[in-house]
Amino acid sequence: MRPTDQLRPIEITRHYLSGSPGSVLYRCGETVVLCTASVQEGVPPWMAGRGKGWVTAEYNMLPNSTAPRKPRERQGKVDGRTTEIQRLIGRSMRAVIDLEALGERSVTVDCDVLQADGGTRTAAITGGFIALVDAISAVMPGRVWATAGAQGHGESGGGPIRDSVAAVSVGVVDGISYLDLDYALDHRAEVDMNVVMTGGGRFVEIQGCGEEATFDQEQLHALLGLAGQGIRALTERQCGALASAPN
Amino acid sequence: MRPTDQLRPIEITRHYLSGSPGSVLYRCGETVVLCTASVQEGVPPWMAGRGKGWVTAEYNMLPNSTAPRKPRERQGKVDGRTTEIQRLIGRSMRAVIDLEALGERSVTVDCDVLQADGGTRTAAITGGFIALVDAISAVMPGRVWATAGAQGHGESGGGPIRDSVAAVSVGVVDGISYLDLDYALDHRAEVDMNVVMTGGGRFVEIQGCGEEATFDQEQLHALLGLAGQGIRALTERQCGALASAPN
Amino acid sequence: MRPTDQLRPIEITRHYLSGSPGSVLYRCGETVVLCTASVQEGVPPWMAGRGKGWVTAEYNMLPNSTAPRKPRERQGKVDGRTTEIQRLIGRSMRAVIDLEALGERSVTVDCDVLQADGGTRTAAITGGFIALVDAISAVMPGRVWATAGAQGHGESGGGPIRDSVAAVSVGVVDGISYLDLDYALDHRAEVDMNVVMTGGGRFVEIQGCGEEATFDQEQLHALLGLAGQGIRALTERQCGALASAPN
Amino acid sequence: MRPTDQLRPIEITRHYLSGSPGSVLYRCGETVVLCTASVQEGVPPWMAGRGKGWVTAEYNMLPNSTAPRKPRERQGKVDGRTTEIQRLIGRSMRAVIDLEALGERSVTVDCDVLQADGGTRTAAITGGFIALVDAISAVMPGRVWATAGAQGHGESGGGPIRDSVAAVSVGVVDGISYLDLDYALDHRAEVDMNVVMTGGGRFVEIQGCGEEATFDQEQLHALLGLAGQGIRALTERQCGALASAPN
Amino acid sequence: MRPTDQLRPIEITRHYLSGSPGSVLYRCGETVVLCTASVQEGVPPWMAGRGKGWVTAEYNMLPNSTAPRKPRERQGKVDGRTTEIQRLIGRSMRAVIDLEALGERSVTVDCDVLQADGGTRTAAITGGFIALVDAISAVMPGRVWATAGAQGHGESGGGPIRDSVAAVSVGVVDGISYLDLDYALDHRAEVDMNVVMTGGGRFVEIQGCGEEATFDQEQLHALLGLAGQGIRALTERQCGALASAPN
Amino acid sequence: MRPTDQLRPIEITRHYLSGSPGSVLYRCGETVVLCTASVQEGVPPWMAGRGKGWVTAEYNMLPNSTAPRKPRERQGKVDGRTTEIQRLIGRSMRAVIDLEALGERSVTVDCDVLQADGGTRTAAITGGFIALVDAISAVMPGRVWATAGAQGHGESGGGPIRDSVAAVSVGVVDGISYLDLDYALDHRAEVDMNVVMTGGGRFVEIQGCGEEATFDQEQLHALLGLAGQGIRALTERQCGALASAPN
Repeated sequence: MRPTDQLRPIEITRHYLSGSPGSVLYRCGETVVLCTASVQEGVPPWMAGRGKGWVTAEYNMLPNSTAPRKPRERQGKVDGRTTEIQRLIGRSMRAVIDLEALGERSVTVDCDVLQADGGTRTAAITGGFIALVDAISAVMPGRVWATAGAQGHGESGGGPIRDSVAAVSVGVVDGISYLDLDYALDHRAEVDMNVVMTGGGRFVEIQGCGEEATFDQEQLHALLGLAGQGIRALTERQCGALASAPN
Repeated sequence: MRPTDQLRPIEITRHYLSGSPGSVLYRCGETVVLCTASVQEGVPPWMAGRGKGWVTAEYNMLPNSTAPRKPRERQGKVDGRTTEIQRLIGRSMRAVIDLEALGERSVTVDCDVLQADGGTRTAAITGGFIALVDAISAVMPGRVWATAGAQGHGESGGGPIRDSVAAVSVGVVDGISYLDLDYALDHRAEVDMNVVMTGGGRFVEIQGCGEEATFDQEQLHALLGLAGQGIRALTERQCGALASAPN
Repeated sequence: MRPTDQLRPIEITRHYLSGSPGSVLYRCGETVVLCTASVQEGVPPWMAGRGKGWVTAEYNMLPNSTAPRKPRERQGKVDGRTTEIQRLIGRSMRAVIDLEALGERSVTVDCDVLQADGGTRTAAITGGFIALVDAISAVMPGRVWATAGAQGHGESGGGPIRDSVAAVSVGVVDGISYLDLDYALDHRAEVDMNVVMTGGGRFVEIQGCGEEATFDQEQLHALLGLAGQGIRALTERQCGALASAPN
Repeated sequence: MRPTDQLRPIEITRHYLSGSPGSVLYRCGETVVLCTASVQEGVPPWMAGRGKGWVTAEYNMLPNSTAPRKPRERQGKVDGRTTEIQRLIGRSMRAVIDLEALGERSVTVDCDVLQADGGTRTAAITGGFIALVDAISAVMPGRVWATAGAQGHGESGGGPIRDSVAAVSVGVVDGISYLDLDYALDHRAEVDMNVVMTGGGRFVEIQGCGEEATFDQEQLHALLGLAGQGIRALTERQCGALASAPN
Repeated sequence: MRPTDQLRPIEITRHYLSGSPGSVLYRCGETVVLCTASVQEGVPPWMAGRGKGWVTAEYNMLPNSTAPRKPRERQGKVDGRTTEIQRLIGRSMRAVIDLEALGERSVTVDCDVLQADGGTRTAAITGGFIALVDAISAVMPGRVWATAGAQGHGESGGGPIRDSVAAVSVGVVDGISYLDLDYALDHRAEVDMNVVMTGGGRFVEIQGCGEEATFDQEQLHALLGLAGQGIRALTERQCGALASAPN
Repeated sequence: MRPTDQLRPIEITRHYLSGSPGSVLYRCGETVVLCTASVQEGVPPWMAGRGKGWVTAEYNMLPNSTAPRKPRERQGKVDGRTTEIQRLIGRSMRAVIDLEALGERSVTVDCDVLQADGGTRTAAITGGFIALVDAISAVMPGRVWATAGAQGHGESGGGPIRDSVAAVSVGVVDGISYLDLDYALDHRAEVDMNVVMTGGGRFVEIQGCGEEATFDQEQLHALLGLAGQGIRALTERQCGALASAPN
C-alpha cells in the first residue's frame, strides 16, 4: 500500500499527437489526461489593441473515463463541476504567464480525461503546463521563458513563462491526512483540498472544503505541508520531462 | 476611511416579505441581497427513502444590481461564476445542517442580489443562514437547533441546525491585507480569498486565489487571521438578529 | 372588506437602490415590484442612424414571490406569460415616449416581482413609469417632459415624455365587476381585463379575455368605467411621488 | 378598392389532407393558413383523473409565407409574437368548448401560415374552429354540439362544442376605421385591435393597442361596431362550410 | 395493386403561393410536399468576394403530416433524420448548379411536408428542383439554363442550371425489389436505398442501407436498375411541368 | 508514395484503458480514434419487455484533433456531420448484431477522434467493432459469436455477433480512383464514397456522393471494387487483433 505522503506513479508523454506541438499524455496512477495546448494569433475583441495575450482552459471527461458511462455534455448545459474546474485550470496557467510578453495571442489548454481515478483537475494542471510550454515554444522558439538561461536551454529570457505551475490534492480520510487522493480515498474524504503552487513555492490557489464536515487550524496546516511536499516532487517531474528533448 | 480590519456596516431585516417566513434583506455597506429560504416536503427521487433531507442554493444578480446593466441569465447558460457561487452557498449551508434531523425535506436558499458592491457571495451565505433558520423554524417549530437550550430560546434540541455559518472575504491590495473587500478594493486585489466558518470557529471552506498573481505562506496566515476576526463579528450579528423575535 | 371600486393601498419608494437613479419599489397591497430603469447610450444596430431611441422592458418573478416556490427561467425558455407581460410593459412605456426627443438612447425598464398577490403586470407599468422618468431625468436633466412647465418643475419642454401612463386590472367575479383584483379575486374571475391609459385619459391598451367564459357589451362598458376611475387615482399617486423631490 | 367595412374574400377547404379528418385550408384574401386539429386520448398528467379534456394551439409561419424569407423558429427560442398568438388561439377555442363534455382528450389545433398578408391570427381562429369541429366529429360522431339539433344535423346534443367562435382585426389608419386589415393597412395602422367573438355575439377576447399611439372612447366604440359586423359575416361562412357535407 | 416497377401518381402545381415565384406543391401518391425556393442577394460572409453563389435546403414535417401528431422541432434540437435529409437535398441541388454562373446569390429551398406517406425526401428533391428553376428564373429571366436553347425556351445559355435532378427510393421487401416505396412498404423493407440522378443519367448520390440487414452485389444492381428507370420517368414529368408555362 | 489501391498502415491497441474492457486505440495513418464500447443492463423504456437489446454510437472530434482547433459541441447543437456519422456507426454495428441474442442490454460505442487525417468515420466503424466484441465478451464470456467455433476460440455459438463489420472510404481524385482517402486526397475528391461491409462480403451501407459533381455507372463499379478489396484487408486485421489474446 502507498504511504500517505507519497504521490502515485507519474508518466508524461510529450508530443503525443503528431499534429499538435503541445500535446501531452499525462498519467498519474490510473488517471489519464490528454492535455493539448493550441495557440491562435489574436485575442477576443474585448482585449484587442492592448498588446496582451490570453490563456484559457477547457476540461472534459470522455464518456467512458468513468464507469458507469457518463453522458456527454452536449445539451447546452456544461455542469457546474466542469465549469469550476476549467476556470481553475485557466487561472492556474495565467498565474505563471506574463500576458504582455505573450503578445496578442490566445492559448487554449484542452484537458480531456481519458480515464478518471481521482485527481483529474490537478493532473490537468500539472500536465497542461507542459503542453502550454511546448505550444508556446512552437510559435515563439527560444523565447519561452521569462528568465535568461531558464530550463538549461540557453534561453535568452523575456519570454512569457515566469515559473512552472503544478497542483495536487490532499485530504483527510478517517482522521488521517493523505497526499494525492485516488477515487477510493477521495470518495471517503471528510475534507478535500486542492492546492496549486508555482515551482518557486508560492501559492496560486487553495480550495479546501468539507462537504457536510468542517476542519480546524491544525488540520489545515498539516494538509498544506503535505501539499507543498507533493508539489516539489511534481515540479521535478515537469522539469525532467521538459528537459528531455530540445524545444 | 474604514480601517483595514473592520467590516462594513451590516443591516439585517428578517421577515422582509410577508408571504415567506424565511426572507431576509441583508445589507453590508452598499451590497444588498434578498435571501429567501423555502422548504418543500420530500426530496429528489435519487435521495428518497433514506430519511434524509437536502439543502441547495441559487444565486442571481438582478440586472441593475451593477452598472452598466447586466443581462439576465435566461439563455439556458448560467455563467461559470454564478454556478460556482451557488454551489459554494449550498455546501456552506449543508456543513451546519444535520440532514437526517431535517427529515425528507428540501430546502432552497435563494440569494438575489439587488445591489452589488463586492462581497455578494459572502453576504449571501451570512444572510442566507438566517433565512434558513427562519424557514426551518416555520415548519419545525421549537425543533430547529441540534443542541438543547440553543439560542436562548429554551430549544429542546435534536433539530437539524448544528451551528451557525458565516462568510467573509479578505484580500491583499497593494501589499496590504484587508477585511471585507468592497468592489473598489476587490477590483484592485492581487489576492482574493473567501473564507466560510462556523460560529464554533471551524473552517467550512477556504477559496483563495491570485489572479495573475501568487502569495506566500506568511500572507496566507495574515489573511486567515483577519477572516477569523471578521467571522466572529458576523456571528454575533447573526445571533443578535435571530434573538430579536421569537421563532 | 375593500369596496369593489377601490384600489388597494399603494406605496411608492423612489431611489430605492443607491446605485440606480431610476429605481422604484412599488407596493400595491401585498404585491411588491422592484422597477429599475437604466439608460444606455446608443441603440441596436437595426435602429442606428435614425436619431431615435428605444424603450424596452423585462419582467421577472423572483422564485419566492409566490408559494410554492417558482423555478427560475434559466433554461433558455422564457414562458409565454412572461413574454406577453414584458411586451405589454414595453409598448405601454413607448406609447408616452417621443422616441425622437429621446435621441439615440436605449432604455430598459426591469420589473422584478419580489412578492406577487395579483396585478403584478399593472404594478410594473405604474411603477415602471416612475422609474423611467427618474432614469431619463438623470441623463437629460431639466429636459424630461415634452411640455413646458410640466410637473410643476419649471420644465422648459421638448423632452421625451409626453404624458404619464398607468395600468389597472378589472374583472368580473361571481357576476360582479371589481377594480384592482388581488390573487384571490383574480383566481375566481370569469372575465379579466387589463387596461393601460395615459394621464390624459386615452387608451394605450385593452386586453380583456374570458378564460373558458365570455362577456357581453354591457359588462365591457362597466369594466371600462371602473378602469378609468382606477387609472385616475393611480395617475394622482404617480404625480405626487414625482413631485416629492426635484429631479 | 375594398370598402372599409367589408371583409376580404374567404375560401374554406375542409378535409384538405386525406390523412387528417380535421384539416382546413383557410384563405382570406392573400392570407393562407393550414389549420389541422388532432385529438389524442388522455390529458397531461397534471389534469388527469378530473374527467376533463384540454384544447391547445400552435401557430407557425412557414419561412416563405413572407418576403423576405423568415428563418424557422428552431433555435429553442419561440419568439414573443408566436407565443402570444398561440396562447390567444388556444383561449379562443376553449371559450366555446365544454371541457367536461370533451372527456379526457387533448386537442391540438395547429395553424401553419403558408402565406401571410395580414390577419393571420384571426384567420387561424376562424379556420381553426372548423378544423376543431371536424376533428372532434371524427372521434365523437353525432355528439359534437352541446345543443340538440345544432347545425341542422339532427345532433342529439350534450357534445363539447357550445358555440362557434371567429375573429377579425379592426384598426385605425390615417384616422379612418377599417375592418379586416391586410398587411398594407396593418403596417400603417395607428391603432390595431383583434376581436374574438362567439356565434352568439359575446366577446371572447379584445386586444387593442396603439403602438406609439393612443385612442379614445369614441374610436373604441367605432372599432367594436365594425368588428361585430365582421364576426357576423364570418360566422355565416363557418356555418355554411360546416353544413356543406355531413360529419 | 401498383406494379413493383411503377411510380405512384405525381401531381405538380407550380406557383402555388401568389407571393413566392418559386413555390411548388408536389404530390406523389399521398405524400404532399410544399417546396419553395427563395433567392437572396449576397452570400454568407465566409463566401463573399469569390463571385460564387450558394444553395442550401431546409426540410420540415408539419405536425399533422403523420399520425399520431409529431411535435414541432422547436426545442433547439433538430433531429438527426431532419439534418441528414436537408443536407442531402442541398447537395443534390448544388450538383446541378454552376455556382459561379449563379453569382453572389444565396438560394434556400424549403421543403415542408404537409402529408407524409413515404418518399418525402425524394419528393422534396424532385419538387424542390422545379421551385429552384422558377425562383432563379424570377431573378435571372432568360438566363436560367447553362446550355443554349435548353428546355425549348430559346434560352441563350450561360445560366446557372446545368441539368435537372430528381430522386427516387428503391428497396427490398420480402426479397422483392420495389420502386418508389410508400410508408407501408418502407416500413417493412430489409434494404432501403435513395438514389439521386441528373436528367443526363449521372449519379449524384447513392445512399443504401440495410437496417439490421445486409445486401449483396446482385441486389445492388437490381435496385440501381429500378432507380434509373424511375428517375427517367420523373425527369419527363419535371420537363413537362417546366414547359407548361414560359418562365 | 502510397499506391492508389493500398490502405494506410493500421495499428490496433486493445484494452487501451485499464478500466474499460472494450477500449481500442485505432490508428490508420495519422488518424487516431479511441473507440470504447460499454454495456449497460436494460434498454430504453420504449424497447423494454421485448427481450431485445440495442446498440448505439456516439462520435466526437476532440478540439485539437484538427488544426485550427475546433470548438467543442457543447452549445446544445450537435452539428449535422456529427449526427450523420454517429447514426452511420450505429447502423453498421446493428447490421452484424443479433439483438435478440444480446438480450435486454444497451451497448454504446463511443468514438472519440484524437487526431483526424481523413477517414475518421470508417476508422470509427472498423475500430469500434473490435471494442464492441471486447465489451460484449466481458459481460457474456464464451457466448459472443453467433456461430460455434467462431474466431478459433472454441466458441459454443448462439451469441449476438453474427459477422464482423468494417468500413473504408474510396473516391475519385483528378479522375483517378483511390482507396482509403487521407485528408489531402479527400479534400480534392470529386466523388467520395464510404462503404461498410461485413466480413462475409455483404454490403451494410453505401454512401456515395459527388459534391458539386456527379459520377457514372463505370466509376461506381470501379469504386465498389476498390472498396471490397480494402474491406477484405481490414477484416484480416480485425481477426488478427481479436485472435491476439483470449476473450
